[in-house]
Amino acid sequence: MASSMIFTDCSSSTTSRLIHFNRRSSNNNTLLLRQCVDQLRLRTPNRSCSSLSIHCSSSPTPANSESEASLAKVIDGKAVAKTIRDEITIEVTRMKESIGVVPGLAVILVGDRKDSATYVRNKKKACDSVGIKSFEVCLSEDSSEEEVLKSVSSFNDDPSVHGILVQLPLPSHMVEQNILNAVSIEKDVDGFHPLNIGRLAMRGREPLFVPCTPKGCIELLRRYNVEIKGKRAVVIGRSNIVGMPAALLLQREDATVTIIHSRTKNTEEITREADIIISAVGQPNMVRGSWIKPGAVLIDVGINPVEDLSAPRGYRLVGDICYEEACKVASAITPVPGGVGPMTIAMLLSNTLTSAKRIHNFE
Amino acid sequence: MASSMIFTDCSSSTTSRLIHFNRRSSNNNTLLLRQCVDQLRLRTPNRSCSSLSIHCSSSPTPANSESEASLAKVIDGKAVAKTIRDEITIEVTRMKESIGVVPGLAVILVGDRKDSATYVRNKKKACDSVGIKSFEVCLSEDSSEEEVLKSVSSFNDDPSVHGILVQLPLPSHMVEQNILNAVSIEKDVDGFHPLNIGRLAMRGREPLFVPCTPKGCIELLRRYNVEIKGKRAVVIGRSNIVGMPAALLLQREDATVTIIHSRTKNTEEITREADIIISAVGQPNMVRGSWIKPGAVLIDVGINPVEDLSAPRGYRLVGDICYEEACKVASAITPVPGGVGPMTIAMLLSNTLTSAKRIHNFE
Repeated sequence: MASSMIFTDCSSSTTSRLIHFNRRSSNNNTLLLRQCVDQLRLRTPNRSCSSLSIHCSSSPTPANSESEASLAKVIDGKAVAKTIRDEITIEVTRMKESIGVVPGLAVILVGDRKDSATYVRNKKKACDSVGIKSFEVCLSEDSSEEEVLKSVSSFNDDPSVHGILVQLPLPSHMVEQNILNAVSIEKDVDGFHPLNIGRLAMRGREPLFVPCTPKGCIELLRRYNVEIKGKRAVVIGRSNIVGMPAALLLQREDATVTIIHSRTKNTEEITREADIIISAVGQPNMVRGSWIKPGAVLIDVGINPVEDLSAPRGYRLVGDICYEEACKVASAITPVPGGVGPMTIAMLLSNTLTSAKRIHNFE
Repeated sequence: MASSMIFTDCSSSTTSRLIHFNRRSSNNNTLLLRQCVDQLRLRTPNRSCSSLSIHCSSSPTPANSESEASLAKVIDGKAVAKTIRDEITIEVTRMKESIGVVPGLAVILVGDRKDSATYVRNKKKACDSVGIKSFEVCLSEDSSEEEVLKSVSSFNDDPSVHGILVQLPLPSHMVEQNILNAVSIEKDVDGFHPLNIGRLAMRGREPLFVPCTPKGCIELLRRYNVEIKGKRAVVIGRSNIVGMPAALLLQREDATVTIIHSRTKNTEEITREADIIISAVGQPNMVRGSWIKPGAVLIDVGINPVEDLSAPRGYRLVGDICYEEACKVASAITPVPGGVGPMTIAMLLSNTLTSAKRIHNFE
């Protein structure tokens, strides 16, 4: 139950997939913390990490983050997401008043996972808050693939639905790809269809949708006037849902991009060359202060629970980047929580609006 | 006419597109050489480039390239391409004998460009040499888009055709994308369809075809036992047809990849970090010896004509990498010509064979 509650600000299917990885690791938070320390020992052999939970733990909310020692501006994802939702509200209203069309987002939920139910509830709330109509189908755990495909197909055909999300993970007896591939590319607001990714990679082509979390990262940079063009950017993690599309987006913005992954050697050294770092690996506090070029801008996609007996639930959330160290070196940093998380669902709403506008040829 | 003859070993539509860029620049070879010098001055301000044509000019054939000062092994693309063609010949024969199917490649040529006619002729020759059946449609310069689409459609439906190439450039009154998009993705042996590129970018997905030139680059590394996994790779150039897919391929092979492009700062410094460099920008001798990490492996995709009054045609071909300097620093290097060039068409034949095998479910 705890793990179903901690990701309430990251609620597109994107995030749930990312989190799924974290959640598997977090069945035992003590183990996870130990893994974290081990990993840091491995990666930074000359640093003592025995006091990790004290020295590399503070992930403050924007309000109290700018201590005297902190140089970094806090990139307030919660505030930016709020602004974007307000902008979307205005556009939704304008669309409704001009052509009588209300954007619609459909979510398909299969099974009884509490965390999935929470995500779906949050999406519904977010839709409500901006005036987007939400549709929901809940199918039982033992539904057949065919039944799910039938729901997808019916939303594909429904003109009041402009975006379709299949909440992941699906029950293990289903082949995820079969179901995701059935979603009409015009309504695939997650943006994970290979055709979308291909267009994202290609110069002179435009994807129909940009995946929500990476889009949120770039949007944060934009709204904080961080210049991307000509900058060196490092993306840590090469997942299909965050790292890889984030790298493609940075490249579209004319950054010089390097992707770091599990096979990379000299991770620390390469990261230290970056003006912009986007980290999306799900490894708590992996990126230490010594990895960061002074003045770099840091976007932390990781949301990792670590044991904290002083916290009300016995754990707290930290990013991939050691906030306490990083904020003394970087020029700007996203907190965890309250950074990238709230942007994901804002971008989902944005993609749904974009889809409705495109389908109805509304500018 | 000269420019129609100099690219005879790079004859897929891939290359013709790349070369098109070069050809535009090379209307005046003197100008191009001057541009090269200017550019080098700009990029390496402390180096004298006044004697560029002497010091950075030698792009020998494999036979005479290993002078005493050269450390680098020459990666002999011509020989590797020959080996691959022999392997393809065996497979084509085996397929014919086992199931009576002969792979077929169709090329659509529109207009009277002599260079395009040369490429098409070379493709036909290459097909003949390995036993692949070739089909050809030549349409006049003033054909309509509709007529070209009709040819594409008829090859799409023809079961004896397993690969379709539309020779580029098309006459200016046609929209290239409309015609390329009409080619069945199962027969798109160029591998440029966004769906293919998307699959190339995504982990856990497989493209139907890998674009010929980048595939040739990786194949050269493989055949010369160059380890890619965990290595730092720099791709210079981010074109849809070479740079970008080459980067995606290197990443699939677990390299840590950085793409350098026109907006990149510190190009020299970044390039010097690379264990593997793939250059595909079409700038003669841009990559100097000082840009190269000792022991790096260099794959030079550029084929650039530069003025050389002592050469029979008044020009000679050089790569993007200053061969004379680079071969003293690198551990291995592709010559120009005779490096990547011959691989492109070998990969086109390979893609056609793959397509025929897939369509006929032949292992």
